[in-house]
Amino acid sequence: MIEDKNQQRTDLGTLGEFGLIDHLTKNFKINHESTVKGIGDDAAVLDFKKKIVVTTDLLVEGVHFDLSYMPLKHLGYKSVIVNLSDVFAMNATATQITVSIAVSNRFPLEALEEIYAGIETAAKIYNIDVIGGDTTSSNKGLLISVTALGEVDNEVYRSGAKPNDLLVVSGDLGGAYMGLQVLEREKEVFKVNPNNQPDLDAYTYIIERQLKPEARKDIVKLLKDLDVKPTSMIDISDGLSSEIMHICKQSKVGCDLYEAKIPLDPQVISTCEEFNIDSTTVALNGGEDYELLMTISQEDYPKIKANPNLTVIGYMTESSAGMHLVTRAETKIPIKAQGWKNFDE
Amino acid sequence: MIEDKNQQRTDLGTLGEFGLIDHLTKNFKINHESTVKGIGDDAAVLDFKKKIVVTTDLLVEGVHFDLSYMPLKHLGYKSVIVNLSDVFAMNATATQITVSIAVSNRFPLEALEEIYAGIETAAKIYNIDVIGGDTTSSNKGLLISVTALGEVDNEVYRSGAKPNDLLVVSGDLGGAYMGLQVLEREKEVFKVNPNNQPDLDAYTYIIERQLKPEARKDIVKLLKDLDVKPTSMIDISDGLSSEIMHICKQSKVGCDLYEAKIPLDPQVISTCEEFNIDSTTVALNGGEDYELLMTISQEDYPKIKANPNLTVIGYMTESSAGMHLVTRAETKIPIKAQGWKNFDE
Repeated sequence: MIEDKNQQRTDLGTLGEFGLIDHLTKNFKINHESTVKGIGDDAAVLDFKKKIVVTTDLLVEGVHFDLSYMPLKHLGYKSVIVNLSDVFAMNATATQITVSIAVSNRFPLEALEEIYAGIETAAKIYNIDVIGGDTTSSNKGLLISVTALGEVDNEVYRSGAKPNDLLVVSGDLGGAYMGLQVLEREKEVFKVNPNNQPDLDAYTYIIERQLKPEARKDIVKLLKDLDVKPTSMIDISDGLSSEIMHICKQSKVGCDLYEAKIPLDPQVISTCEEFNIDSTTVALNGGEDYELLMTISQEDYPKIKANPNLTVIGYMTESSAGMHLVTRAETKIPIKAQGWKNFDE
Repeated sequence: MIEDKNQQRTDLGTLGEFGLIDHLTKNFKINHESTVKGIGDDAAVLDFKKKIVVTTDLLVEGVHFDLSYMPLKHLGYKSVIVNLSDVFAMNATATQITVSIAVSNRFPLEALEEIYAGIETAAKIYNIDVIGGDTTSSNKGLLISVTALGEVDNEVYRSGAKPNDLLVVSGDLGGAYMGLQVLEREKEVFKVNPNNQPDLDAYTYIIERQLKPEARKDIVKLLKDLDVKPTSMIDISDGLSSEIMHICKQSKVGCDLYEAKIPLDPQVISTCEEFNIDSTTVALNGGEDYELLMTISQEDYPKIKANPNLTVIGYMTESSAGMHLVTRAETKIPIKAQGWKNFDE
């Protein structure tokens, strides 16, 4: 539905493996002092003066993305973002990434160039050095594997939450999931009538949340500026309930989450109504919002309470009290994770 | 041909994504002081007191391996080795890896356990901490993406070779490629007659070179013990000619390589005769031997000349002299890289 039928097609075989990597990475610049040597040898060489974090994520065609509505440039961008989000969830500064791509011969060189353009854009915006990678063929489909590194002074784990800590989330939730629902619906419409021009003006925010998510680098900086060190932190990739359960399990605490406090964009609410889906369910289980979920000491509440980027949505309890959603009707429902179950079909 | 028809089959969906990762990684132990936090948070946390190297490689079913003769445990092992080889090629000590796997639902849990058993074995033998990863489904086939980290005091690049330096290789070459030829032949035989029991005794060394390669950690230690710092180094993953060209290009030198000096195992020679393939061509273009190719100053020659692990196969020249193979008949042939051209079919 967004394909340009007139695009140039250059076979991947024409450049050879080494020529291909050189070609795709020739624009990447090195900005970090910690990058001693980037692309071009058996390994990159890095020199950090402090602790580092390392995280890796795979994006698989047909599982994590659908090329019928995901532009390749956005896909490259998103493949970086999902990894940076994990770096920021450690309270770290992202510094380097490696990018590996497996791609079938059905993709021309120009498709890989699009993906790398998205990667380059993300690297520029987030000030990341691309220091290595691997490009190979696959029998079928497209797969992107990114590993991100970052520097950290005061890392924040999932395991530090204490009873009475406040549960705080950045931004708003459910947008990425509802954006996906709109895109899936338009795909079905397109199948029936390929000449239909969809009017997506009412969904611009949630579609952008799905196709071009951002990672909350600004929140890590904000917390530093506010002199708040969260007691625990995690990024919201699988949905709020799943992430709360990770924090509770690893911190050995319980939680009361207030339904009425969950931040939702008006576009999420209206689209949920249109699709006849409960917006709380979407926020709890939707995933892919790449917001940061954290716990902070009650002493730090005055520092964050005026900030529009952070919302208190509950508080931590003793482990024995369990994990509950306190509904608008003030009933308590146990929190269950659904998240993404990739292996269930 | 090596499949056990009676194996237990547990669907991957039964454990869920988080349960699956916990299950597969529960035996992994942390040994390195530099590993502050391994698997279990948004990212691993590492603390190095020196420079590090980072490298990543993808292995794709149907491109890099064929499960009809590659046991899953060996595949897990090899996926680690190919990355460690790059770490050693930097003159570094391998310390940590992340492992990401995309796998279709046709694989049962037991298959993933086999792969992880191979990864665990490699991690133990090479003293590596497994610090993170990602496991996800794929529409088709199996893909393993490994990122390896190592510590380094004196890194060795591809770019430091000087005219008159000696060209030195560890071990012997061509075994992995000829092992693959034998396995491919047996696969064809098996297709015709599944009850045929192949007698592979004459090929044990070369089959092991293909299915269970090792990375030359010992060479990095040996060079240190001998007080030799190579002027350049690269691992042989794509074939000798391709790697020589990398060194010559990045070091801006030429090379004379002596055909008669290329180390070949007797099993490689006899199998080449059986298959009617030229053994020099196999050593030059075969790849996957994971030996180390390096250049050393002539002053260091006395330190290495008695060592059975290292063979001098040529010397570097001025760039203007070009890259040549000096044949047994003392004619000079220009070296051309073939290597693996993944995108040509």
